[in-house]
Amino acid sequence: MIDVQNPLLSKLSAFATLTNSERASLGRFDRPRRCFEIGTDLMREGEKNSTAYILLDGWVLSYKLLRSGERQIVDFQVPGDFLGLRSLLLRTADHSIEPVTPIIAVEIGMTDLLRIFRESPRLAAAMLWALSTDGAVVVERLVSLGRRDAIERVAHFFLELGARLKVVGLATGDGYACPLSQYHLADALGLSAVHINRVLRQLREEELMTFRAGKVTFDNFDKLVQIAQFDTAYMDHGGAARE
Amino acid sequence: MIDVQNPLLSKLSAFATLTNSERASLGRFDRPRRCFEIGTDLMREGEKNSTAYILLDGWVLSYKLLRSGERQIVDFQVPGDFLGLRSLLLRTADHSIEPVTPIIAVEIGMTDLLRIFRESPRLAAAMLWALSTDGAVVVERLVSLGRRDAIERVAHFFLELGARLKVVGLATGDGYACPLSQYHLADALGLSAVHINRVLRQLREEELMTFRAGKVTFDNFDKLVQIAQFDTAYMDHGGAARE
Repeated sequence: MIDVQNPLLSKLSAFATLTNSERASLGRFDRPRRCFEIGTDLMREGEKNSTAYILLDGWVLSYKLLRSGERQIVDFQVPGDFLGLRSLLLRTADHSIEPVTPIIAVEIGMTDLLRIFRESPRLAAAMLWALSTDGAVVVERLVSLGRRDAIERVAHFFLELGARLKVVGLATGDGYACPLSQYHLADALGLSAVHINRVLRQLREEELMTFRAGKVTFDNFDKLVQIAQFDTAYMDHGGAARE
Repeated sequence: MIDVQNPLLSKLSAFATLTNSERASLGRFDRPRRCFEIGTDLMREGEKNSTAYILLDGWVLSYKLLRSGERQIVDFQVPGDFLGLRSLLLRTADHSIEPVTPIIAVEIGMTDLLRIFRESPRLAAAMLWALSTDGAVVVERLVSLGRRDAIERVAHFFLELGARLKVVGLATGDGYACPLSQYHLADALGLSAVHINRVLRQLREEELMTFRAGKVTFDNFDKLVQIAQFDTAYMDHGGAARE
């Protein structure tokens, strides 16, 4: 019943050492699994009583559409992340979600949430922590759009994704596989695709990082951290829920 | 022991009808109260093991400072809001908090949180909901900076604040008291104070809204909603936690 492959387990374990019964409590989320292909929205802005998911495999993006037809990508989600948990709690989806790659996800409803909270207040705190990390990511994106120049934005973005992927074992200090296009980066970072292309070339020529053929390679991690003023503190893990 | 004046009670009651024991559980937060004057930070970015608070009276702002000395205001908090809950969970403050007006706040620690979660899973869900609303506000701010023009940003900002204040009885459809300066608006919305001034004049001359002498007045609420493409859905309340 317990699926050690579940990346949510890896993620929440970074916050608190989970007991066997807590792992079992989470393990019961492990069905039904659903697969979504590219082109099928998981959730549409404005939808009532949407379902939330835990992402097991693949990447998705969350976005909001404006009347003008422009879209703002709010964030990308990677394995172990909640999808649409905020929309579930708010009863109306405040954003849309679409797969970047084919994905596998597990449904999670309000009843499941309340059951988990009943079974373990520590799991509730761990889930609050996971939501807090999601919140911190959006705050960093806000600072990027408001105050960081193009090169700082792009560097910060790739470092942060790396830190998030590392928690679930999908990145090392050297880099990670990344299925995003330059158009995705443009819509997330408020830059044009042409501008993104120029910044990526600059990062490569200065031997800081390379993003090519679906792979991010950190050529000079420390200098990149310095340029981006990247602070891993908001990705901090280490047992805040240990009583 | 139960303080019906506690605006957090009003806020969480919008999410779920609280039982007497749930109200008592929350009521036990009601000491010690602390007062902070303007000029005293409640929390500084990077601080370890910071305390979180529930804001009972007054306004605060959350911000991040950049190496350049520029600051990005992430959000303003009003009575009933959590302050630094994310920082408490992340163990390191990911932003700074300073009072906009003299404030009264109640401390809240990890032990309090875990106790509340133990006593009531529904309260845990209500608190997740409150955090979700905070998250939705930051997402909207992100969309504003990324995709909304100056007049849409300012209109959206004042409508959203109004919706949040209404939940705790501090606003009506006509308007509300607002202690913010044009410099606050500028740092939050990524515009210059001069630009903010010009937009406010335009809103006033077109008889949409007036912000003067610490008071926001909606002169034409419906048209303002239309211009801002303001959607109250993410402020939706109404009992998602009713089992």
